[in-house]
Amino acid sequence: MKVAIIMGSKSDWPVVQKAANLLTDFGVEIEKRIISAHSTPVQAEEFAKNAEANGIDVIIAAAGKAAHLAGVLAAGTPLPVIGIPMKSSTMDGLDSLLSVVQMPKGVPVATVAIDGAENAALLAIQMMGLKYPELRQAMKDYKKKMEEDIVKLDEEFQEE
Amino acid sequence: MKVAIIMGSKSDWPVVQKAANLLTDFGVEIEKRIISAHSTPVQAEEFAKNAEANGIDVIIAAAGKAAHLAGVLAAGTPLPVIGIPMKSSTMDGLDSLLSVVQMPKGVPVATVAIDGAENAALLAIQMMGLKYPELRQAMKDYKKKMEEDIVKLDEEFQEE
Amino acid sequence: MKVAIIMGSKSDWPVVQKAANLLTDFGVEIEKRIISAHSTPVQAEEFAKNAEANGIDVIIAAAGKAAHLAGVLAAGTPLPVIGIPMKSSTMDGLDSLLSVVQMPKGVPVATVAIDGAENAALLAIQMMGLKYPELRQAMKDYKKKMEEDIVKLDEEFQEE
Amino acid sequence: MKVAIIMGSKSDWPVVQKAANLLTDFGVEIEKRIISAHSTPVQAEEFAKNAEANGIDVIIAAAGKAAHLAGVLAAGTPLPVIGIPMKSSTMDGLDSLLSVVQMPKGVPVATVAIDGAENAALLAIQMMGLKYPELRQAMKDYKKKMEEDIVKLDEEFQEE
Amino acid sequence: MKVAIIMGSKSDWPVVQKAANLLTDFGVEIEKRIISAHSTPVQAEEFAKNAEANGIDVIIAAAGKAAHLAGVLAAGTPLPVIGIPMKSSTMDGLDSLLSVVQMPKGVPVATVAIDGAENAALLAIQMMGLKYPELRQAMKDYKKKMEEDIVKLDEEFQEE
Amino acid sequence: MKVAIIMGSKSDWPVVQKAANLLTDFGVEIEKRIISAHSTPVQAEEFAKNAEANGIDVIIAAAGKAAHLAGVLAAGTPLPVIGIPMKSSTMDGLDSLLSVVQMPKGVPVATVAIDGAENAALLAIQMMGLKYPELRQAMKDYKKKMEEDIVKLDEEFQEE
Amino acid sequence: MKVAIIMGSKSDWPVVQKAANLLTDFGVEIEKRIISAHSTPVQAEEFAKNAEANGIDVIIAAAGKAAHLAGVLAAGTPLPVIGIPMKSSTMDGLDSLLSVVQMPKGVPVATVAIDGAENAALLAIQMMGLKYPELRQAMKDYKKKMEEDIVKLDEEFQEE
Amino acid sequence: MKVAIIMGSKSDWPVVQKAANLLTDFGVEIEKRIISAHSTPVQAEEFAKNAEANGIDVIIAAAGKAAHLAGVLAAGTPLPVIGIPMKSSTMDGLDSLLSVVQMPKGVPVATVAIDGAENAALLAIQMMGLKYPELRQAMKDYKKKMEEDIVKLDEEFQEE
Repeated sequence: MKVAIIMGSKSDWPVVQKAANLLTDFGVEIEKRIISAHSTPVQAEEFAKNAEANGIDVIIAAAGKAAHLAGVLAAGTPLPVIGIPMKSSTMDGLDSLLSVVQMPKGVPVATVAIDGAENAALLAIQMMGLKYPELRQAMKDYKKKMEEDIVKLDEEFQEE
Repeated sequence: MKVAIIMGSKSDWPVVQKAANLLTDFGVEIEKRIISAHSTPVQAEEFAKNAEANGIDVIIAAAGKAAHLAGVLAAGTPLPVIGIPMKSSTMDGLDSLLSVVQMPKGVPVATVAIDGAENAALLAIQMMGLKYPELRQAMKDYKKKMEEDIVKLDEEFQEE
Repeated sequence: MKVAIIMGSKSDWPVVQKAANLLTDFGVEIEKRIISAHSTPVQAEEFAKNAEANGIDVIIAAAGKAAHLAGVLAAGTPLPVIGIPMKSSTMDGLDSLLSVVQMPKGVPVATVAIDGAENAALLAIQMMGLKYPELRQAMKDYKKKMEEDIVKLDEEFQEE
Repeated sequence: MKVAIIMGSKSDWPVVQKAANLLTDFGVEIEKRIISAHSTPVQAEEFAKNAEANGIDVIIAAAGKAAHLAGVLAAGTPLPVIGIPMKSSTMDGLDSLLSVVQMPKGVPVATVAIDGAENAALLAIQMMGLKYPELRQAMKDYKKKMEEDIVKLDEEFQEE
Repeated sequence: MKVAIIMGSKSDWPVVQKAANLLTDFGVEIEKRIISAHSTPVQAEEFAKNAEANGIDVIIAAAGKAAHLAGVLAAGTPLPVIGIPMKSSTMDGLDSLLSVVQMPKGVPVATVAIDGAENAALLAIQMMGLKYPELRQAMKDYKKKMEEDIVKLDEEFQEE
Repeated sequence: MKVAIIMGSKSDWPVVQKAANLLTDFGVEIEKRIISAHSTPVQAEEFAKNAEANGIDVIIAAAGKAAHLAGVLAAGTPLPVIGIPMKSSTMDGLDSLLSVVQMPKGVPVATVAIDGAENAALLAIQMMGLKYPELRQAMKDYKKKMEEDIVKLDEEFQEE
Repeated sequence: MKVAIIMGSKSDWPVVQKAANLLTDFGVEIEKRIISAHSTPVQAEEFAKNAEANGIDVIIAAAGKAAHLAGVLAAGTPLPVIGIPMKSSTMDGLDSLLSVVQMPKGVPVATVAIDGAENAALLAIQMMGLKYPELRQAMKDYKKKMEEDIVKLDEEFQEE
Repeated sequence: MKVAIIMGSKSDWPVVQKAANLLTDFGVEIEKRIISAHSTPVQAEEFAKNAEANGIDVIIAAAGKAAHLAGVLAAGTPLPVIGIPMKSSTMDGLDSLLSVVQMPKGVPVATVAIDGAENAALLAIQMMGLKYPELRQAMKDYKKKMEEDIVKLDEEFQEE
């Protein structure tokens, strides 16, 4: 069970770290990297080409502005690639969102919400749930706990 | 190997059918349904609750406007859910895109491009590639063929 | 005279509280809840199904991002549902607005402005004014007072 | 049981007519008018001032571009006002939507989707359901029939 | 030479004041008012109807969100009305801009930039320049001074 | 009474012609020109510099895409300049609208709706109404007739 | 004098061809290719790496949706890369525009208007004008002719 | 080797300065100016007309809001003009971006990202690389260093 988390810039780490933490909580090994689609294109291509052989199950790619990273990685691997559009420019992340989600026919990127690091991790878990029954079960437990937490919060809130 | 394709409205079929065809080409069984998050919410909840037990690996949900279908299904299942935002209103699909992709923390939807039915199918194949080695290989072949087709097209184009 | 105020997240309370306060000022009983369309979908369905029997006249639902809460509640009840799109993501509330207002044919949500909690309360009062003459009268008084306040403010301002 | 349907321009009738037809199907009397907030402001003010006395329960106002009609009517009446933003300019209805929904504090407009005439009618029925039990019941029947229709459509679709 | 400056809310004054100051600098009498298209519609109509008789040459109207004030005033007067869309909601003023500028055929509003109070004043001066030669001349002087100021700034900047 | 109508491209004429026709109906002399801010900048500057001396009262400038024409003319004249943002690209006129209306401090452009040629003409009439009492009166008559036309249309519509 | 014109899809040719024709008119050799950043990433990288050695002066890259082509080529070459955002999705080209222009620090793409093929060619000529005096002169002639054409058009138009 | 950097307003300098610094680092002479397309149009025209004769290779123009500066300069010179859309209004720079990039046929502006000062400098270097081999080489070195820096950063990050 291994997920690679690739960022286009180290400044994205405070947000992306939440995905790493959540995956670690689920017992998933992570490989974390800084690779830029534009500044280190050779590294990006190398990484994508070898990801499957390196035992990676799912790739999470986070980038901002004209966010090509997820697409560039998806081009080079048969693994599912999850894209996190980062809010890192003046445009509230709309530029990143469209650059990540509007992929042309043939090379999909599984896009989550702008800055949606936790959801990227959960989506990776759901994907790996196809292969690892323990992650499928862990996902069910997670959903159950989330429900219980909100029900409890709701009960307290009604009393306030 | 089974993918459920759920549409919010039958009028989405001309676009969504491409996902069904592509999955069938890959030898994946499909279950196709019309379920509305708003008009048949009980059916939506039932479907989601039973999807795993019914042998479904991945759910693809396509809806337009305030497109809640993918999110509603994702709420009720530990399976990965792929959302296709449909252009079905006056707003070029922006309303659908934001309604599908901007899911709150805890319940991700793997969003593809507006009207991106083929990519939804390919993303489902990539996810199932974790579990079914033959689909992993088929995805590699698909990518190789896509590359060869464009290289051939490019050669012919250079001669024009 | 009873209005249910449902929030998708407790973090919306500082804004939504204004609706609660305004309704209380009008002498309307409120039931306040935290229910998430995605994390507690069963609770959402239960609430909607029983709202009429529980004596609720109007439902106000506030949620952010891909805000499905109002639509999910509207799916399960014949009561009028008022949706408040919350600014809770990076997108200035545009994602919430479109997710709430662009409901497909068959299941309307009465949408007010982004973060428009007071107007949600006033709209609920106007709706209940059909049934409760005292609220119709209270609404007239409110409008009259609002007019007088601004006329007074205007007079003072002209003197400044 | 009476709903006024006001349009800013007769060219909106092909869309708005659907609201009139649906209300008539529900047995609701309609008064249909062409009143422009800008070209006939006195008529707009007169209409709003007298709407309650004229036995109107709910006002539906449809207008495009800088759509002030719903807001102008809402300013002059304690009745609930439903706004339909019409797509009548080059901007896909975004201008109308924002002009209708973003009402300032004090004067709400219950906004439905762009060109959402049927939903405006259904919302009016839901509001009148507070006062007229037969409309509450009719709304339940409508929702039930909508559900049955889609379930039937789904069954046929699965067989295709 | 008299310009009326109407605001929908006193909270707009810090921005709108710049228009008042600039007009005063040009020797133009101003009448400043707080009138809400929605909360004090009767006052708005009265003001518009009497503006010409009250010796007003040009009306400047500033409002935010679904900014109907300029349009409502323009409906009731043959005087030119200048609209300032105010940034007063979460939407960066886009809602105000579209609500002010997208006026339907028959009732124009001369729209300036979002929060563009100074330009509203200058536009009023340019309009009044048709009637008052001294304002035409003052406008020429203003443009000349603006040019000289920037030329001087440029010269200093080149030396830095 | 003379208005100059300047277009950035002859392809804008079918829309802009409506302004010319309306002005002619009001008895205003028009001078119509094709001047491009980018292709014939010298002509643009010449025109602006001499407009006042040539007896022009108001300038109407229509252009699409990055529509600089109105701003460039406004830079060179103390006359009021009305800008019509033309929908001439893929972006529904949003590019033109922002390029025309968001003028920086010091050089206003009186912006009307996208493709709003008639309103540009009416705004010019309103401006010239400050100087020419017959145009002030004509504007009042126009508004009165517009009101009567809609009232008549409304009466017929109520009978349908 | 050689410009490479790269398209992400052959369907872009009807628009992009205008760039090829214009460059040919200026006597510039063109190399035209179909290379997809996502389907043929290796070819893209190869092309970029060898472009300078192959005698190419400027690269023009045209792509739609999440348009990564220009950025991917720019990553691999010190040559200037001009990006044409193509309108090829439902979003009027806004997705392409942001994907092309919002490049992160370090790897610029010289972006022209959506579907702006001719301007891409002219920009390439202007760049090559630094090196080839005959292109600098040809550009001056082009601008002069463009001016003369519009002046002539204007003269005829004034007579109409 | 000389680049002119023109700003529409001195307030843009904190951002634009980065372009100046980067160009200086590359050994390129810069001429820095404050010229407003609207307040000092004559200076803008003069500058553009004489830029080539003054030994300038490339012009960088930075402006906000309805940012006409780059287009106005491009109109008057055969040199390549790079436009930096500045975020200087309420609209996150979208107004500037569209005003700069959507230039009509005949007069291109090489547009970089909003506030993308460094990329404007690098693009100028790439353009000048056609003429000055030392800049071509410097650009290669810059790219190499950027790659090495990120590879190093990545290595350290993997160890964290």
